[in-house]
Amino acid sequence: VASPLPLDDILRAAERLDGIANRTPVLTSRTLDERTGGRLFLKAESFQRTGSFKFRGAYNTVSSLPPDEQRRGVCTVSSGNHAQALALAAWLVGVPAVILMPEDAPPAKLAATRGYGAEVVVYDRYSMPQAEAGRRLQEERGLTFVSSHDDPRISAGAGTAALELRDEVGDLDVLVAPIGGGGGMAGYSTVVKALCVGVRVVGAESAASQVNARSLAAGHRVDIDIPRTIADGQQLTTPGRFPFEVMKETVDEVVAVTDDQILDAMAFLFDRMKVVTEPSGAIATAAVLSGLVDVAGARVGVIISGGNVGVDRFVALLGGRS
Amino acid sequence: VASPLPLDDILRAAERLDGIANRTPVLTSRTLDERTGGRLFLKAESFQRTGSFKFRGAYNTVSSLPPDEQRRGVCTVSSGNHAQALALAAWLVGVPAVILMPEDAPPAKLAATRGYGAEVVVYDRYSMPQAEAGRRLQEERGLTFVSSHDDPRISAGAGTAALELRDEVGDLDVLVAPIGGGGGMAGYSTVVKALCVGVRVVGAESAASQVNARSLAAGHRVDIDIPRTIADGQQLTTPGRFPFEVMKETVDEVVAVTDDQILDAMAFLFDRMKVVTEPSGAIATAAVLSGLVDVAGARVGVIISGGNVGVDRFVALLGGRS
Repeated sequence: VASPLPLDDILRAAERLDGIANRTPVLTSRTLDERTGGRLFLKAESFQRTGSFKFRGAYNTVSSLPPDEQRRGVCTVSSGNHAQALALAAWLVGVPAVILMPEDAPPAKLAATRGYGAEVVVYDRYSMPQAEAGRRLQEERGLTFVSSHDDPRISAGAGTAALELRDEVGDLDVLVAPIGGGGGMAGYSTVVKALCVGVRVVGAESAASQVNARSLAAGHRVDIDIPRTIADGQQLTTPGRFPFEVMKETVDEVVAVTDDQILDAMAFLFDRMKVVTEPSGAIATAAVLSGLVDVAGARVGVIISGGNVGVDRFVALLGGRS
Repeated sequence: VASPLPLDDILRAAERLDGIANRTPVLTSRTLDERTGGRLFLKAESFQRTGSFKFRGAYNTVSSLPPDEQRRGVCTVSSGNHAQALALAAWLVGVPAVILMPEDAPPAKLAATRGYGAEVVVYDRYSMPQAEAGRRLQEERGLTFVSSHDDPRISAGAGTAALELRDEVGDLDVLVAPIGGGGGMAGYSTVVKALCVGVRVVGAESAASQVNARSLAAGHRVDIDIPRTIADGQQLTTPGRFPFEVMKETVDEVVAVTDDQILDAMAFLFDRMKVVTEPSGAIATAAVLSGLVDVAGARVGVIISGGNVGVDRFVALLGGRS
């Protein structure tokens, strides 16, 4: 069974990212191993540039665009990690970037994205749907739209994190990674299925969503309402078209993680490993720590996908729990 | 001007710690450099084993004790980072360890120290002074007392963090490090004064204490009441005897950092760099970030000494500030 994403694309992405993306640390914890019975290797993309794995895909995409598209510039619609990732990637390549954000996005997010050199355009999400706002921007300015997750180049970039992990720790029996739109998972799963014989690939998604589990069970992409979860990187209403085709071939299982399990994992990572994670970033760790994935005796790679949670939000999420 | 601590002792400690202590990461931040005007290199000992720099000195001391002292075992009085550091160090060397803690110490600290394999003995700090409790333990059991800070072997171990920093980033113009009892600073300052020509060494201590600044100004160790500060690693009433002799020769300046400046630095390190720090661990970063140390145009090493702040305490300290 072959992934529709060629491993070669990921190897080429690794060359593009060499010396530009951080080679993020792989963290281990005796306590975590004792609690789960496995040998766990946490790839901490929270230490990636802009604080999440998204930088890898954004840079891979922008740097591989044809020169005329680079000249005109790129755009996206995002108030999340992809916005900052694309802004920095474009700035590094020397490409203009326009990020469309809802006008009620947190001021700190607007400022951070501008801080990376992007032009931020706000739209009123109540009077105009996001897709419409994005389309207008592309047409008026001739910009190339860069999806946060639904693009082979995004997944190829993300896959380089799994390459690094495999390089550093060797073969894995299990890989556990978050699934939102699937852009990251499509990359990671392609890598480990190609390089680690017999590996089991487990996706972790919000129990409030389960859109990936349901879509994979149905064999086609299911649509849901925006799920209510603290894992804001996973508030998608359907899997990405391209990643879904990859995940059909490469993902063995998807587990449903509750917000409480995510908070437990965020607290564990903070207390025991001194790692700052946002809710979506901690969800794969939560899946393992809460026993949703049986890892006894296994060598397990776990992706920590991001650490963009401000002090205020962290305090609000974790205050008064114990 | 020579440090009373031979550089050779630190080089030997580095050999003992090789492959045992973590070689902790050196972190940089474009934002931090822009705000301060310097080029900053943060040595993150929060990622050291047991979560603080203390492991280096504890392991160096325990592993270099004569065989008969190792056989009888070691003890200390601490409810802080030294307790866990000594417990793990002793366990790794195969030496019995007894840690004396006040019986009203947080249960989590007692459990963590036992978790590293040490025997924890509690005493009633209202009916018996700490020194008296420690003395009894040594006499009754023939244990070797290992100070948290007042011992050349402790400082030699700590100094290896500065050696790694210098190895990784080259010469420094300024080194900024926390001073509590001085055990860490004595090691760091010895290293950089020996290896970086013209380096300026700046200590950061709590504005509520200033016991090191006052002692250095007076030329002898001053005694104060226990200072009220969130930097619990710095709640000492006088500098250590040995470190003070070193610091007289090697420390150029000591700056006084307020609790608010520490909290700002903890929030910055969390938000921008995804680094978990305890108050004492963030104090040197706070000194630079708040402008107490002029670093314009300079290459600056900064020691982050520890990250042992639980989620609950972090939330309590940083909740409701903005």
